[in-house]
Formats: sequence, C-alpha cells, structure tokens
Amino acid sequence: MKIVIIGGSFAGIQAAITSRTYYPQAEIVLLEKQSEIGYISGSLSLLLQGKITNLDQLSWMSARQLQEEYQIDVRCNRAVVGLMEGNQLQLADNEIVSYDRLIIATGSGQYSRYGGEAGEAPSRILRFKKKSEAEVLLEWLPTVQKIAVIGGGQVGLELSEGLIHANKQVHLFESSSQLLFRYLDAEMAAPLTKSAAAAGVQLHLNAYVQELQEKNDQVTLITANEQETVDLVLVATSTRPDNSLWDDTLNLNDDGTIQVDRWMQTSRPNVFAVGDAVQVIFQPTGEAMYISLVNNAIRTAKLAAANLAGLKEEDSGTLRTIGNYLFGYYLGSTGLTESEGIFYSAPLRTQTLELPINLFTKEKQRIKLLVDEQTHQLVGAQIVSTAPVLEILNRFAEAIRLKQTIQQLQQSEEFFHPALNLPQPLMARIEDPYED
Amino acid sequence: MKIVIIGGSFAGIQAAITSRTYYPQAEIVLLEKQSEIGYISGSLSLLLQGKITNLDQLSWMSARQLQEEYQIDVRCNRAVVGLMEGNQLQLADNEIVSYDRLIIATGSGQYSRYGGEAGEAPSRILRFKKKSEAEVLLEWLPTVQKIAVIGGGQVGLELSEGLIHANKQVHLFESSSQLLFRYLDAEMAAPLTKSAAAAGVQLHLNAYVQELQEKNDQVTLITANEQETVDLVLVATSTRPDNSLWDDTLNLNDDGTIQVDRWMQTSRPNVFAVGDAVQVIFQPTGEAMYISLVNNAIRTAKLAAANLAGLKEEDSGTLRTIGNYLFGYYLGSTGLTESEGIFYSAPLRTQTLELPINLFTKEKQRIKLLVDEQTHQLVGAQIVSTAPVLEILNRFAEAIRLKQTIQQLQQSEEFFHPALNLPQPLMARIEDPYED
Repeated sequence: MKIVIIGGSFAGIQAAITSRTYYPQAEIVLLEKQSEIGYISGSLSLLLQGKITNLDQLSWMSARQLQEEYQIDVRCNRAVVGLMEGNQLQLADNEIVSYDRLIIATGSGQYSRYGGEAGEAPSRILRFKKKSEAEVLLEWLPTVQKIAVIGGGQVGLELSEGLIHANKQVHLFESSSQLLFRYLDAEMAAPLTKSAAAAGVQLHLNAYVQELQEKNDQVTLITANEQETVDLVLVATSTRPDNSLWDDTLNLNDDGTIQVDRWMQTSRPNVFAVGDAVQVIFQPTGEAMYISLVNNAIRTAKLAAANLAGLKEEDSGTLRTIGNYLFGYYLGSTGLTESEGIFYSAPLRTQTLELPINLFTKEKQRIKLLVDEQTHQLVGAQIVSTAPVLEILNRFAEAIRLKQTIQQLQQSEEFFHPALNLPQPLMARIEDPYED
Repeated sequence: MKIVIIGGSFAGIQAAITSRTYYPQAEIVLLEKQSEIGYISGSLSLLLQGKITNLDQLSWMSARQLQEEYQIDVRCNRAVVGLMEGNQLQLADNEIVSYDRLIIATGSGQYSRYGGEAGEAPSRILRFKKKSEAEVLLEWLPTVQKIAVIGGGQVGLELSEGLIHANKQVHLFESSSQLLFRYLDAEMAAPLTKSAAAAGVQLHLNAYVQELQEKNDQVTLITANEQETVDLVLVATSTRPDNSLWDDTLNLNDDGTIQVDRWMQTSRPNVFAVGDAVQVIFQPTGEAMYISLVNNAIRTAKLAAANLAGLKEEDSGTLRTIGNYLFGYYLGSTGLTESEGIFYSAPLRTQTLELPINLFTKEKQRIKLLVDEQTHQLVGAQIVSTAPVLEILNRFAEAIRLKQTIQQLQQSEEFFHPALNLPQPLMARIEDPYED
C-alpha cells in the first residue's frame, strides 16, 4: 500500500507516524509545501518572550527524524495543485504522485477580509501562522514601535505578551466584549484582562476592525467608534482552511472545510481529510464545528490512519480543551461555557470554587463548573490560577467525556500531600443538583 | 438527632462537616483526646525542612473554625474509656456522653514492638504521629547528632529529608530491599534511593531491626548483619490502630481494626467506624486491607455521615493513591504495582514511558503502567519525575476506577501547549495488549 499525506504540521506528522504503526510494510510519502515540517506556530510568541532563542528550537519533529525513525519519505517544497482521476495527485511543475490512500492534512492559514497571504506584497499587515510569516514579522520588528494585534483569542494574547516583552507599544483589538470569549465566561477572563492592561496592553474591546488603511509607512485601523494609527498590524483572528484546491473534486462545507464522515473519509474513495481541514463534533452539543486545535489534529490524524485499510474507529468528537499561560495566569477550559448555554438542550447549574492550591499557601485557583440539571453530568469546566494547575483540566475533560454524574464523581480518588493539594478531593466538591 | 464523633484528625473533622451538611438540625459533638484538633502529622518534616516555621502553621481546621462555621460542639482533652449499654459513651473522670449515632474516628498511632507510646518514659526511642510526640522530638533535636529512622516508607523518608536539612547524620533502616516498597516497583524507586544517598542518608536496606538497646544516652539498633549506635531513634514503621478500647463491645479484625460493612457500620447498632480505625477494600484485588491514607479517612468519613439516618451509599474502596516530593523527586502511585502482580487474578502487561514533560525541555517523567491482559483495563500506574507532574496520577486513578480499557483511553482529550505538555495525549500512548 502506498500512503500519501499532504501537509507537514501536527496532523500530517501524526498521520505518518500512526500509519507506520499500523502498516509496517507500506510506502508512506509526506508532501509539504514549505521547506521544512513540524513548525509550531506558538514559537513566535515564545521567542518574543525570550523563552526560546530561535524559531527552530521548538520543532516537534524534523523531516530527518520522521525519515529515520519512521521510514517516511518526506518531500518538502512540494505544492499540490489538485486531485486527478485514478488515485493520482497533481503537483506543481507537472509532477504526478500516485497513491492507494491519501490523507489531506493541509491545516489552516489566516485568510481574512484584511487581504491575502503575507509575503504577497511588502505590506505592514502581517500574519504569522507559518514559519515564513513569522520570519517576516521578526524582520519588521526592530524598525517599528506601535503595533496593533487584531483578535483577543489565544494567538492574539500570546503575541501581545511577546510584543510587550520586546518593549513594543501594543494595541489589542477584540470584536467581542471580552478576551478568550470562546473558552472562558466573562468573569473568568476578568483577571487576565486586568493583568494584560497592567502589563501595558492597550485593550480595545467591542472593537470590530472594519477597515485597514495602509499609507505612508503606517496603518490605520477603523472601528465604529475610533481610529488608531500604528506602525504594524498583526492579524490574529481565527484561522480558516483554504480548500479551494479541492473545489471541483471533493464536497466542501459552507465554511470551506472538507466534508468527512466519522471515519475521516471524504466524498471521494480512498481520500481522507483531518486536522484543520475538517470540522469536528463538539461533544457537549453534538454539533459539527470548525475547531482549530492541536488535539483535534492529532486525534483525527490517528483515526484516519487507523481506518485506511478498513473502517476501524469512529471519531467521538472534541471537548475543545485548551490551556495556556498568559500575563501571569494559567487559564484553561474544557466543554461548554455558560455563555454557550443558550445553544444547549437542558438547563445548566453553574458552580464556582475558590480554593487554595494546597494547605500551605493562600495562592488560589478559581474553578467554574457547569452541570446539566437533567442528567446531573458535568458538561463544562474553566480554571484560572497564578499557579500551574492546568493538568486538573484534563481530569475534568475525562469526567465530561465519560458522562460522569456528580454522584459518580464523589467516589473519585486523589493523592493527598499538604504541600501539593487539599485533603478533600476536588471532584467531591462539585455540588449535585439532586440535593435541592 | 445527636451525633457524637470520637477523634479530631482528618476522618473526625470530615465526619463532622459532612454530618452538618446532611443534618442541619442535629446536635453534633466531637470528642478529642488531645488539646487540639486538625494536626497534620506531615508538619514535622516540613518544619525540619524549613518549609513552615511552626507545627501549627499547617492545620487543616481549628476547633474554633469547626464550631463557628459548622456549629460543631468540639470538646478537647476528652479521653473515651469505652462503650456502655443504651447508646452511651464512658469518658475519663466518670463523664458520660449519650448519642443517637456514634462515629469512631480515632485514627492510628505508632504502636510497635519497640515499646509503648512516646512520653511514657523519657526515652530516646521516639514516635511523632501526634503533635505532642513531634514536640518531644523537637526538644531533643538540638542535643543529638546521629539519628536512626526505622522505616523507608513515606513517613521515614520525609523525616530523613527533614533531618538532613537540619544537618543531622541520618541512618535509615528499611526491612525490605527498597524504599517505598508498598507503592513503587524497585526500578521506579531507584532514582530516589540514589538521590537520598547523595543527600547524605546512610541507607540500610534489607535491614530488619530486631532489637533496640537503650544505654548511656545512646541507642543501639541490632539487625541480622550489623549494629549501629545512635543518639536518637525515630520509629517510622507503619501505623496501626489501637482499638483495645472496644475489645468487649465491638467485633475487631485480627489486625486490630474495627469490623465494618460497606456502609461503615460496626457490629453494634448506631455505631459507625471510619478512617484509620477500619480496613478498606483495595479495588484492584477486591481484598480488605489496612491502608492508612488521608484519602481513605476523608472518603469513609463522608460515607458514614451520609448513612447515619438510613443507608444511602456504599464504599467502593480505594486505589491507594499517593503522591509525595522526596529528595528532589515527585513520586506517586495508584492501583496495583508489578510486584503485587502475584496476588492478582490475571496476567499483567507492564509498559514504561520515558517522556519529556513538554516540548521545551529535556526534563523527563518516567511513568510505569500496568494493564490487565484479560480485560485490557488499566490497573496500576507509577510516576517519577523531577518536575511537579503528580496531578497526572489522579487521572490515572480515575481511569482505573472507571475500568477504562486501553482502547477507550485512546479517545481521551488533553489541552496542548508547547511549554506545558506534549502534543500526543498521555492516555493515547498506552499500548493495548490487543495489538499482539
């Protein structure tokens, strides 16, 4: 069997590794458009924050490793042009690659109404998901002082923190009324907002950027209420896949993602799609959504690989679990938020715990929990702390995935150590709506 | 309803708190033999290590808090003498206390073949589970230099580390061939052994102390192969409950614990027993064992309280989950160890993962997993790392408790952040014996 994988970021690399595990004899080819694989887009902010010294330091896996450890034929600088009849792939320069099974793991870029890809023109409106884009930003950096970041999600905040660390003047524009609105309810995001402002970020909330005007080595951002002129604009709005390549050959969804079934099969035989190229099921609502996260990339890639020689495993969807460290706070979320409750089928009970992280300290963790009042199951959890407590979130994610009721969670067991946690297990502190 | 609780350590305090939640109108009395409640026996080592400045700093809850926040009638300096007919309790000084429901939460002490309780004579053979015992040790400390600790479990190791920090010469005697043998397999304990020795602890493994001879302001420890003479001996062997008080009135097990059913009821109507006074079911083997851990104290206390007015909840047992920080290593264990495999009903597959803790660092975590080859369920996990990764252990404990198969764990979700963890979820790295 010859397996061809398009894309060398998380999904593509994982698809290659898992394919090798399942099919020791297969020929496995990985095609990547860029000159290398495994770039981690978070590297840029970590570099700006001084936590790494160059963009390559944080690579998950190099082409060489993938070749030597997993016998993958990695071919970089290969741009795919489209699908042909008869299990063949058309590349640039008239190259043709045949396959028995194809996995599309092309990921996403920052395509937005603010213009095309970075690098197309010498513009001061930048993107940075790809390494080449990050390098352009790093070249600009010494010559600019006032920088606008559009988007108050994880990426926009990471960049803002990095730029503050690099002594830049930062204006952050967010169209909603709060930071990290996809993951945290407003009151859970409040400490972060305060801390980002205290660090020097000029926050513009409820500030939808309608237009960018580039003129005289500056860019002006125009919102309904104000104008701000800066030296450079970084677009950190949500990513979208560019699947125009497959317009004529695969069924696409309205948002541009490739249609797949629960086994990651596209509308065309022998062709699978994974990661940021597809939608996933958000478990709490059962709805198919575009959720661009590494854990989805990894999970769907493994599934596709498992299903190449016969359908073995279905996707059970995602809880959209994230964790980050931003402006002095560890923040994370899994499952439903309260503000999403309106899309949920049952009434929700919320509970917020303010607990010291151990018996030693007054350092606190704030945990918000959402319980379905009908099933009495945990359906969402958010956590904020100055202490590194995010691993707890993965336990909440498991409780949600396994549809544990609050009563069942009472029997959870934790180790206890006075310097590390509290005597009463966290799970046993969740209130059961039954008790009313 | 009048609820009387005997004992003011973890189990007793938790029984009082939970009783108040269930029975808002009840009269609740807590009797404690010592002059205060809530002492945490780990305080002593933390004090010696300089992490706290006095023994009271780490109290879970004071008598005053319990009275004010939960309206518990806390009575200290009350020694119980025995049970009388007609729901009455005999105290010292001819005091009699009646009850509708009684919860015995008397905990355990270090009763061993090396002699009676500390304080009975001005001896250089000390115990330290109670605060009064810890205070005796602290008085001795300035005048002694060479100290022997008997027992290489959690308590013995914590004390040894504290004494090293206090610049004492420490000899640690352990009758088995390794440290922490109840919780870790030999190879998982090896880094700790090396690190304790490097810190200056003189380790005596396979060294069962047959006799202690106290003479001329010194104590000589005698094992099969050697004699060692020291200034002071600390007995850190496993604790046992002293239930001789109930010899004539309650059914006891051979190991001195009080017999209880799954609802924490003793052989006598209206009398419950919890915590270190009873045995608990070790979930992986289904065997009733004496396992002296705070999490068992908390769980059984809550159960007893829930069952006082009618049987509501059964105990599902323990996984014996522990976590500690010793000589530079975070160490923990949940469920079965490989060396216990001989007591287990099915063959076990072991797997050891050596993983960096995130994409940034070469700092490692070593995780040993045990999988039942027949059910394909996870049944045990151990972890060792220089990094604070122990919260992961609680997730393994949940997986074991919920009888997750390795295949089911493949769908586990984790957040990903390059500076905090790895892209592939930990649970998805466990090998399934099915694959052979």
